[in-house]
Amino acid sequence: MAGNSFGKIFKITTFGESHGDAIGGVIDGCPAGISIDFKAINAEIQRRKPGQSAIVTQRKEEDEVKFLSGIFEGNTTGTPIGFIIENTNQKSKDYSHIKDLYRPSHADYTYDKKYGIRDYRGGGRSSARETACRVVAGAIAKQLIKEIKINAFVSSVGDIFIDKPYQALDFTKTESNLVRCPDAKSAQKMEELIRETRKNGDTVGGTITCVLENVPAGLGEPVFDKLHAELGKAMLSINAVKGFEYGSGFCGAKMKGSEHNDLFNPDGSTKTNLSGGVQGGISNGMDIYFRVAFKPVATIMQKQETIDNKGKKVIAEGKGRHDPCVVPRAVPIVEAMAALVIADFWLLNKVSKAN
Amino acid sequence: MAGNSFGKIFKITTFGESHGDAIGGVIDGCPAGISIDFKAINAEIQRRKPGQSAIVTQRKEEDEVKFLSGIFEGNTTGTPIGFIIENTNQKSKDYSHIKDLYRPSHADYTYDKKYGIRDYRGGGRSSARETACRVVAGAIAKQLIKEIKINAFVSSVGDIFIDKPYQALDFTKTESNLVRCPDAKSAQKMEELIRETRKNGDTVGGTITCVLENVPAGLGEPVFDKLHAELGKAMLSINAVKGFEYGSGFCGAKMKGSEHNDLFNPDGSTKTNLSGGVQGGISNGMDIYFRVAFKPVATIMQKQETIDNKGKKVIAEGKGRHDPCVVPRAVPIVEAMAALVIADFWLLNKVSKAN
Amino acid sequence: MAGNSFGKIFKITTFGESHGDAIGGVIDGCPAGISIDFKAINAEIQRRKPGQSAIVTQRKEEDEVKFLSGIFEGNTTGTPIGFIIENTNQKSKDYSHIKDLYRPSHADYTYDKKYGIRDYRGGGRSSARETACRVVAGAIAKQLIKEIKINAFVSSVGDIFIDKPYQALDFTKTESNLVRCPDAKSAQKMEELIRETRKNGDTVGGTITCVLENVPAGLGEPVFDKLHAELGKAMLSINAVKGFEYGSGFCGAKMKGSEHNDLFNPDGSTKTNLSGGVQGGISNGMDIYFRVAFKPVATIMQKQETIDNKGKKVIAEGKGRHDPCVVPRAVPIVEAMAALVIADFWLLNKVSKAN
Amino acid sequence: MAGNSFGKIFKITTFGESHGDAIGGVIDGCPAGISIDFKAINAEIQRRKPGQSAIVTQRKEEDEVKFLSGIFEGNTTGTPIGFIIENTNQKSKDYSHIKDLYRPSHADYTYDKKYGIRDYRGGGRSSARETACRVVAGAIAKQLIKEIKINAFVSSVGDIFIDKPYQALDFTKTESNLVRCPDAKSAQKMEELIRETRKNGDTVGGTITCVLENVPAGLGEPVFDKLHAELGKAMLSINAVKGFEYGSGFCGAKMKGSEHNDLFNPDGSTKTNLSGGVQGGISNGMDIYFRVAFKPVATIMQKQETIDNKGKKVIAEGKGRHDPCVVPRAVPIVEAMAALVIADFWLLNKVSKAN
Repeated sequence: MAGNSFGKIFKITTFGESHGDAIGGVIDGCPAGISIDFKAINAEIQRRKPGQSAIVTQRKEEDEVKFLSGIFEGNTTGTPIGFIIENTNQKSKDYSHIKDLYRPSHADYTYDKKYGIRDYRGGGRSSARETACRVVAGAIAKQLIKEIKINAFVSSVGDIFIDKPYQALDFTKTESNLVRCPDAKSAQKMEELIRETRKNGDTVGGTITCVLENVPAGLGEPVFDKLHAELGKAMLSINAVKGFEYGSGFCGAKMKGSEHNDLFNPDGSTKTNLSGGVQGGISNGMDIYFRVAFKPVATIMQKQETIDNKGKKVIAEGKGRHDPCVVPRAVPIVEAMAALVIADFWLLNKVSKAN
Repeated sequence: MAGNSFGKIFKITTFGESHGDAIGGVIDGCPAGISIDFKAINAEIQRRKPGQSAIVTQRKEEDEVKFLSGIFEGNTTGTPIGFIIENTNQKSKDYSHIKDLYRPSHADYTYDKKYGIRDYRGGGRSSARETACRVVAGAIAKQLIKEIKINAFVSSVGDIFIDKPYQALDFTKTESNLVRCPDAKSAQKMEELIRETRKNGDTVGGTITCVLENVPAGLGEPVFDKLHAELGKAMLSINAVKGFEYGSGFCGAKMKGSEHNDLFNPDGSTKTNLSGGVQGGISNGMDIYFRVAFKPVATIMQKQETIDNKGKKVIAEGKGRHDPCVVPRAVPIVEAMAALVIADFWLLNKVSKAN
Repeated sequence: MAGNSFGKIFKITTFGESHGDAIGGVIDGCPAGISIDFKAINAEIQRRKPGQSAIVTQRKEEDEVKFLSGIFEGNTTGTPIGFIIENTNQKSKDYSHIKDLYRPSHADYTYDKKYGIRDYRGGGRSSARETACRVVAGAIAKQLIKEIKINAFVSSVGDIFIDKPYQALDFTKTESNLVRCPDAKSAQKMEELIRETRKNGDTVGGTITCVLENVPAGLGEPVFDKLHAELGKAMLSINAVKGFEYGSGFCGAKMKGSEHNDLFNPDGSTKTNLSGGVQGGISNGMDIYFRVAFKPVATIMQKQETIDNKGKKVIAEGKGRHDPCVVPRAVPIVEAMAALVIADFWLLNKVSKAN
Repeated sequence: MAGNSFGKIFKITTFGESHGDAIGGVIDGCPAGISIDFKAINAEIQRRKPGQSAIVTQRKEEDEVKFLSGIFEGNTTGTPIGFIIENTNQKSKDYSHIKDLYRPSHADYTYDKKYGIRDYRGGGRSSARETACRVVAGAIAKQLIKEIKINAFVSSVGDIFIDKPYQALDFTKTESNLVRCPDAKSAQKMEELIRETRKNGDTVGGTITCVLENVPAGLGEPVFDKLHAELGKAMLSINAVKGFEYGSGFCGAKMKGSEHNDLFNPDGSTKTNLSGGVQGGISNGMDIYFRVAFKPVATIMQKQETIDNKGKKVIAEGKGRHDPCVVPRAVPIVEAMAALVIADFWLLNKVSKAN
């Protein structure tokens, strides 16, 4: 109930702190009869994993998912899929220095205010480590909605933006560079910026764009559970996200109706797609695309003045191995959350009509 | 289940089509013992009402809410609050011309695809008329969380933006002009733009900024139900919304960590507030502020080529009385949804600690 | 949230106090495309209505349901179905004598303890008047699951029981007598007992048996949401219910496994049906049957010593027109709740398998 | 979603098949700040454990719970509590003989019908092994609502019943015999019956009575989520349960209102308690008591004719080590489910009033 579940039919519940024995999750509502591709799941986990390249955190976590239930002889059985990922890299001692300290722009202070207690080791529950479980669940969701193509990519780092529409990009190139940007030129500049930022002990923000192709018309529920509203919530629930826009987004707010309306082709497709594939909260069969803003990582390798839990001034300094820029590793997380949203609506839509 | 409910503890379910006998809602989970200020509820409804000024739709709807249950001798009783607003202005004949027609950038097509049937009169369930029920529920939520100040205002229309931070604005001025923009100069330009746009039979988009003051630290639930994620979903569920950002938002994605981090004062407040009052999904006691992008209204007073439900080309032309710009009337809706989110988390937070 | 909703996909939320302006409900999740038989709905309401015969309360309530949304040109549209039933017979003055008084075995005391306030007029929210809304929703659910036959009947009043298995009964006879007992002989005795009980200013309990025929195998969800667990909850949520058993029920607890096991026929049906049509919480295609115990109505036409809200001793005496026995009018309520449970699982089952 | 979660605020989700690597669960919504008594949790697990005495299954399962999250330095942190219990005793080969076979009165047939696939090893998800997770969650719930005393006990085995009201029993004696019946004489007869039944390769049913003392007035939510309705669902969701009654139960259905009404004492307590501590779905401060009927275990050590998944007649014969009577081991499960229901309503009740 307290916010650790997502989805109505295809429902994922996650648990775990960054430095406990394990993190994990339960998927309840995955239909029976999906032949699970474990390699595909593992590939997604590897995309999110720390230590995978020179521009992400050098922390090593051998993330390996163990499925405990719900899959029998390679197929889903309709019963809940429980899984865990052990935290093999718990160096609890590393974190004693932040026990009583509130790091700037972290969740230390707010967890203490809310609960009166917190697992201070490495961020505890507020750590982005939790997103590994979302990636597992999303990888299974992707296998349920195989016909739908989900492609996220880094569209900006700091003030370096891809200056092309997504239609001009080749998504097969996304994994060809460390940044996960399908535009080679931009990717190179982004990588340089990240390397330089790290050198300065600093961090930098960025955006991820995600495109969903081949989504059938009819997904989404009216009023409160509009397709884009759930996508927005899903994205905003990812650590460090500050904004979400779909279709024309914030630019659309500057436009005239006569410019913005998408006129129909005779087959029901539209000539333009400023709507972003959604009308009235329901997919219309066109591409769904949206953009997600990530703030710079709060842990920087510089001294910052802060306070402890008694209000005393203290100096915080980032230790250990952290990401100078979160977006390269967040690409599979964005895809996973998109897959979870779509899978859920795909199932819900099976009960929209009586016959 | 099918998306017409919002909230976990303070839960609103709405129903109704724009041209049925009535729209209405049920609030389940409103605590007992709130002395209801009916005038305050009515004032909110009037702010949303069509026909209230020269720059909104001239359609007349005498919106009057009838409470049917859950309030006894002026106080909430803890039982569900049922209410209806009769549709006194049903001119069904007005809409026969769109029976088989799919209006560009409306939900006609998607509802047909999803359900195989739709109430075509005036948008049916997809009409923004439904938001009147949200305003009623939000007005009650505001009375539950009285100490929290919720102020939304129009921050841009088309390409006219307020060029001041919200702290420099006087929210008591928001209602002093037709646009609901607290900056008089900007308001005047916005109003001119709207009047001109209407003259051309066109519509224009805009943004609303909302500021929540005096929110106690500790509201929001971790991981999926982060405070800003629910706010984002709430806003994105409002008709015509294309984007949501809070705190530093999309600008934050261009920044460095050393610029973006909010340093603490000894009392736990922060010197800056790029976080937007939320850390790790939980309020930290600072102002919560966010911005919502609205596309231009799809119904324009110009001829547009479109198709009917057989794929035949036809001409659509806006008839009747529509808003040239939706943001002035959307201000109370944004506030209502914010109030619903905060009220829900405020109640949920009562069960965060054992003692 | 606070307990006024039932169902996961086909979800009914009700509101209303017995002496407010109206009671009503919202069905969210009813699939589109059901051609609504309004006469059938009205027939169910008439079966529950007060004043329908000589052995039920003589209170007159002209229960008429007004549908406000979700049905267009006679068909469900997939949007929420809102409806109200006006309370045309509010005689609030009748109830001033119980304002401060706690009637024995009523909910006056507990509502006061829980909420600190209550609508004392005629039981307020705790009145069985609320069940009229369940009957409306159940009547629509029945139209969704038309192939399934739902037959409830009175199986005992006081110590008069039908002494035949349900298979020996002709359900078309249920409505042929005032008691709604398909066994004519038992019905006559039951009616006599009820008339005599009323004459003494007393009330009497009874049981209702319900048989569901033609339920497809596969309905119900494992573990917590077993088919019979939801049926049990549904029945126990009806006013005055004290017990629920299905299949062999409490008698089964006295039996040996060798007697109790239902052996299979080659077609998957079973030779006996002590299981009551459910195995492991999932329907097996055999008849589902269960029995529900109703206590005697608490309002009796005799003087009872009780207390007021200050703990002072006072005398309560039933006034007005009350049921001497609740089971004849509860038959359609039991059927309605059964229909709601089955409809919900029927829809949920559509997402059990991937293909 | 698919039925593996229980509770609204204090919410448990379980996963796991009897012969997978592990079973486990997640508790989401447990408040922060409970000092966990691990010994008490373990004691409850031991009460449910197979192989604990001469009259239960001799299967050995070294049930040991591993908490993976949500507890830090011995205290709950408000984050989800994930836990697993490894299945150390998986003898999968034992079960190959039932791969294609539908055992009478088991869930083999219905799982196959629902999902088209099932983990046939030892009952898979339908095995009562899942209840170990409920006992873990219930043990934590008990620590949240410490002031409430929950005592379940075996009240009948076959046709041997305790012939005393519960008030005449000494609950400290419940654990003094293998049957968990606080009445020594009855316990001895019950034990003899179980031993004899086992000797015959048969099984026998029974009932469990549960008494909740010191429950504050005000728990339970009106209409659908009545306190006794949730208790009923909770109990009916336990494997092998066929019936539930509370207070006067089925006997109450034979009574007159003048006999059944509970008259008040000046302090709000009642002179009698046929209501069973609940009025209108809300606790009144009196003892809550209810009775649960368990059918005889379906696995008997006798040859039974049955069918395989092709409809071919085959002979099933119980192998391995099974319970001749389930009620002694079900006592802690009944208590656990009662604790979960009460803890949930206890938390929900914190938001019933505005102040």
